[in-house]
Amino acid sequence: MTPEEFRQHGRQVVDWIADYLTRVEQYPVLSRSAPGDVRRQLPAHPPEQAEAFEAVMADVERIILPGLTHWQSPNFFAFFPANHSGPSILAELLSAGLGVQGMLWATSPACTELETHMLDWLVEMLQLPASFLSSSAGGGVIQDSASSASLCALLAARERTTQFASNARGVASHLTAYASSQAHSSIEKAMMVAGLGRENLRLIDVDAHWRMRPERLEEAIERDRQQGAQPCLVVATIGTTSSGSVDPVPAVAEICRRYGVWLHVDAAMYGTAALCPEFRELFEGLEYADSYCFNPHKWMFTNFDCDCFYVADRAALIRTLSVLPEYLKNQATQSGAVIDYRDWQIPLGRRFRALKLWFVIRTFGVAGLQAKVREHVQLAQEFARWVESHPALVRVAPVPLNLVTFRHADGDRATQQLLDRINQSGAAYLTHTRLDDRLVIRVCVGQTNTQRLHVQQLWHRIGTLIG
Amino acid sequence: MTPEEFRQHGRQVVDWIADYLTRVEQYPVLSRSAPGDVRRQLPAHPPEQAEAFEAVMADVERIILPGLTHWQSPNFFAFFPANHSGPSILAELLSAGLGVQGMLWATSPACTELETHMLDWLVEMLQLPASFLSSSAGGGVIQDSASSASLCALLAARERTTQFASNARGVASHLTAYASSQAHSSIEKAMMVAGLGRENLRLIDVDAHWRMRPERLEEAIERDRQQGAQPCLVVATIGTTSSGSVDPVPAVAEICRRYGVWLHVDAAMYGTAALCPEFRELFEGLEYADSYCFNPHKWMFTNFDCDCFYVADRAALIRTLSVLPEYLKNQATQSGAVIDYRDWQIPLGRRFRALKLWFVIRTFGVAGLQAKVREHVQLAQEFARWVESHPALVRVAPVPLNLVTFRHADGDRATQQLLDRINQSGAAYLTHTRLDDRLVIRVCVGQTNTQRLHVQQLWHRIGTLIG
Repeated sequence: MTPEEFRQHGRQVVDWIADYLTRVEQYPVLSRSAPGDVRRQLPAHPPEQAEAFEAVMADVERIILPGLTHWQSPNFFAFFPANHSGPSILAELLSAGLGVQGMLWATSPACTELETHMLDWLVEMLQLPASFLSSSAGGGVIQDSASSASLCALLAARERTTQFASNARGVASHLTAYASSQAHSSIEKAMMVAGLGRENLRLIDVDAHWRMRPERLEEAIERDRQQGAQPCLVVATIGTTSSGSVDPVPAVAEICRRYGVWLHVDAAMYGTAALCPEFRELFEGLEYADSYCFNPHKWMFTNFDCDCFYVADRAALIRTLSVLPEYLKNQATQSGAVIDYRDWQIPLGRRFRALKLWFVIRTFGVAGLQAKVREHVQLAQEFARWVESHPALVRVAPVPLNLVTFRHADGDRATQQLLDRINQSGAAYLTHTRLDDRLVIRVCVGQTNTQRLHVQQLWHRIGTLIG
Repeated sequence: MTPEEFRQHGRQVVDWIADYLTRVEQYPVLSRSAPGDVRRQLPAHPPEQAEAFEAVMADVERIILPGLTHWQSPNFFAFFPANHSGPSILAELLSAGLGVQGMLWATSPACTELETHMLDWLVEMLQLPASFLSSSAGGGVIQDSASSASLCALLAARERTTQFASNARGVASHLTAYASSQAHSSIEKAMMVAGLGRENLRLIDVDAHWRMRPERLEEAIERDRQQGAQPCLVVATIGTTSSGSVDPVPAVAEICRRYGVWLHVDAAMYGTAALCPEFRELFEGLEYADSYCFNPHKWMFTNFDCDCFYVADRAALIRTLSVLPEYLKNQATQSGAVIDYRDWQIPLGRRFRALKLWFVIRTFGVAGLQAKVREHVQLAQEFARWVESHPALVRVAPVPLNLVTFRHADGDRATQQLLDRINQSGAAYLTHTRLDDRLVIRVCVGQTNTQRLHVQQLWHRIGTLIG
């Protein structure tokens, strides 16, 4: 494809996406594809000769589109959002067009420096602790996901606790970690990956509002220490997946400080809300965290993958993840004057992901981002009030921000039926969880283009279904 | 940004990239940016109000461009390539525009099914063992990088060896792994991450052509077993980073079979060459591998990130990486009829990356891909012959494909001077390594648009510099 052909086909794809964004509400949000439906339409063998670009785009429309669950539909209320926006999509296009690698500062200085700068901007925008600024002993980096951020936090905690002996000789001592029973499953996965074992993750009891009980955390740490284990990490969550509950970070942090345990705070979705001063009380205690992450790819209109991961002591992270073979040595690295982000993550290679943060922050402006977040929170709160007012429904968890949980008053079967009917209708996509051993429906308002109308339509449909 | 504004700005970005690809040869390949140059030009604080899209694009040109090392310049011969192509860039644009998540089959069936299908196509295209087909007990998945593929292989090997006890209770036994002294640094990093410890990676001696010596591998395994360790993984490399050497996979595989050790084969760059029947002898013995990876994002005109990772026994991998919380449960998963790729990787979320493989394979055709690879190999071989014919230069390693290593006959200082002068000229970018404790220059021919002219220009410049 010559640059001129690229220009022409590029316009086709841009137009296709513009049209897609215009018509996305027409499609069933949850794909109606059955297992094998997509593959059945694809040729069994790859083409020997080149095909026309138009033929591929025609198959996108014919084969791929019906097999999609439309995450960018304003009627997508499932899981946590993975929202995007025009400027973010175009920044991803630019990143793909430039095709540079940011593994070392030297392999594209702008890729590293823009990332450092954006992560610093976000410290100011979210009023995060100054210890996360690159001008302090800490700093931030873009990870692909909160899963990888948690894993990096666990690894740094493991090494700090074992004085870097695990990296050298393997995990030899009995190391334990702690998170609430409501923490994300990626913490358990990180325990497996890091060689600590899932049985050494203590799932701490929660209170009536699904928040970690600090006294139970302390008991667990004490018990493990008495039995010869070395507690290395506590994960506190600001906005759990199931209920959106917020762990009491200040109390948890105080325990971590006392026992010398690394505190990682996971605010994957809620983190974006710190853009607005009125929501910042949810983030109290962050100044005591050793590491922190939130995902602009969830609720800040920035394409996946973009998790912002901060540490208060970058030396611990870098020492944990650094390996320097001859073929990566270079003057800039050896001068110590630059950041090589490969030492802040698991993979070596990295895309130019800071571009999308830059495009989003500048084209929305901080005020524009705040307005969107406020709108989503307001819509969720309104939806929560409608749920509360309906005799057949029970709102379950408190709604500090944009996640509403509710169930049918008649029990799990009625709740499941309601959920299935909404999803089968194609009009919206909601997912479930279990809280207090009851089936619960989650409604998360966070897709970029979700407006009052969409939440009203959802409510209307629920009303029709339950009578 | 409305869909109409997206259409308009999208054209701007497409045009900018088309122009960039046209003029990329004008820029110094290695950025001349000094540390801090880029940040110095960025405002210290984020903008409160929205800025015009045009203002952002103007800053891309003014601030970002001079801070780039141009990986997509046809004069980029450094490291391994991370090449791209028009169809791949546009597939990335499409992926960003759709913004779907492929963590579960249900969250976008087409995302999973197209990926499975492309990985099957590639088995046929590269004549990989049938055990890697999704219709067998194995299968393939896209990872972000070969680093992550190696880590997943190590984790599955660790679990198979410990009968899944490490996942449950942590690494308790003394586990060892093996790779040649020329293997990629990501193996050492994986040992650290997985809790096995870098000191338990045995770096096996190589022969005069930097290939792993199988008898030394066997000795090391025997010694470890006698000392009570459990050998769990051997990594063989087809195309090492420093010299492009190819480990003797059949002999290594025979040892792995005998001792029941997981064999992972890393062909990150060379893997693409298996498109051409005449290069397939380099891949002999793959049918004995437990896992394998190669990177279309290196040499198959597909944007980073795209590493294809295959396993012969998917059950071992899935059991190693699977965690299923309530909020991810769904009917399709429970039916067992679908693949959930989140269980094949470290992170939970995943982009729609199969699109770029589909676009590339279809618009190039298998014959088109083969032609490009053959052209690069021929250019590298020709360059190697020029080197051999020059009295002041010494070609170092054999050149089976597209990587040429050479040094100045007068020793390291002269070699370093030559390297620095080429890179400072801006006309090309080459990187170095050390082989037999001598500084060596690497020339890797793999950027999509590198043609005879570019290799000739490089050779001419070298000739001018060394007289």
